[in-house]
Amino acid sequence: MQVILDLCVVPLGVGVSVSEYVAACHKVLQQTGLKVHLHAYGTNIEGEWDQVMAAVKQCHEAVHAMGAPRITTTIKLGTRTDREQTMEDKVDSVQRRLQ
Amino acid sequence: MQVILDLCVVPLGVGVSVSEYVAACHKVLQQTGLKVHLHAYGTNIEGEWDQVMAAVKQCHEAVHAMGAPRITTTIKLGTRTDREQTMEDKVDSVQRRLQ
Amino acid sequence: MQVILDLCVVPLGVGVSVSEYVAACHKVLQQTGLKVHLHAYGTNIEGEWDQVMAAVKQCHEAVHAMGAPRITTTIKLGTRTDREQTMEDKVDSVQRRLQ
Amino acid sequence: MQVILDLCVVPLGVGVSVSEYVAACHKVLQQTGLKVHLHAYGTNIEGEWDQVMAAVKQCHEAVHAMGAPRITTTIKLGTRTDREQTMEDKVDSVQRRLQ
Repeated sequence: MQVILDLCVVPLGVGVSVSEYVAACHKVLQQTGLKVHLHAYGTNIEGEWDQVMAAVKQCHEAVHAMGAPRITTTIKLGTRTDREQTMEDKVDSVQRRLQ
Repeated sequence: MQVILDLCVVPLGVGVSVSEYVAACHKVLQQTGLKVHLHAYGTNIEGEWDQVMAAVKQCHEAVHAMGAPRITTTIKLGTRTDREQTMEDKVDSVQRRLQ
Repeated sequence: MQVILDLCVVPLGVGVSVSEYVAACHKVLQQTGLKVHLHAYGTNIEGEWDQVMAAVKQCHEAVHAMGAPRITTTIKLGTRTDREQTMEDKVDSVQRRLQ
Repeated sequence: MQVILDLCVVPLGVGVSVSEYVAACHKVLQQTGLKVHLHAYGTNIEGEWDQVMAAVKQCHEAVHAMGAPRITTTIKLGTRTDREQTMEDKVDSVQRRLQ
């Protein structure tokens, strides 16, 4: 089962700046080889369900290992059985209607 | 790693009423033996990370098996390493401050 | 336009315990007279769109006024034009299918 | 109060393809003059709280006006009082740490 997921990991108890932790997550995600796209409020990830979910777990483990005692994460995720669809397909299908 | 997760599964392409699919998810969750609490915009789940995430995957599989061609899901999830905390603890710690 | 909204306000830069801030939000919400229900990962709110959104803004203002320099909030919200539906209706329609 | 918001509007009861509705939202957002960035699972928006929230309401009104009887929306939003921060600042502060 293929999934497109939007991940936003927020460490608590580490002060007001969290970019160090978000960057650590991004490195974890890049090392998985999954397709990822960073935006201003999260990261889009595309791949096989189990691989993507393993990557999300690794992000939590990495952020805790950096010293964050608490993490709250927001995820949106989509699966479909009617056809294959990539992250680019989703953006393109909207962009085409804007022209 | 223990997790408290809020799950909201939304099937697309099955019309305007989705309670049949939400109920099917709830049955899946209840059968896992995990602690669950249904509210008006999702379900709180508590347990070991891998078990909770396996349950989320089973929900997607069950809803697709019922004929929903597409699902969009929103998840909030929290982990902490400083101390153990249950779903009841979270609600209680807020309620105590309201008295 | 009536809305059912799930609100989860998370203050950053105030340490690992956030229940004091969540309780302050809950007081703000209760004072609005809107229907609210606290659960383990947020609060369900029901009411007219503008009143509910004004309440969400008041929560941010209250949490900043308590000294939190940064807030990240997750919201799910639903509107429908086909029929009226309360928070209780949503839970009941699922519960009925579980019997 | 300045806000950075991530908006994901999902119409229900209109079939499996929703890009037509997402595009309509995007047009609404572009017409507001607010800074917007479309990604594979939502749209980042930046601006003054009241303007951004008015735009979110206009999206719901536009999607209902197109015939969608029900909408479920997921929002992440952040405010801060310690300093100004744009959507580009957020991405840049992560990117700098990846080099």
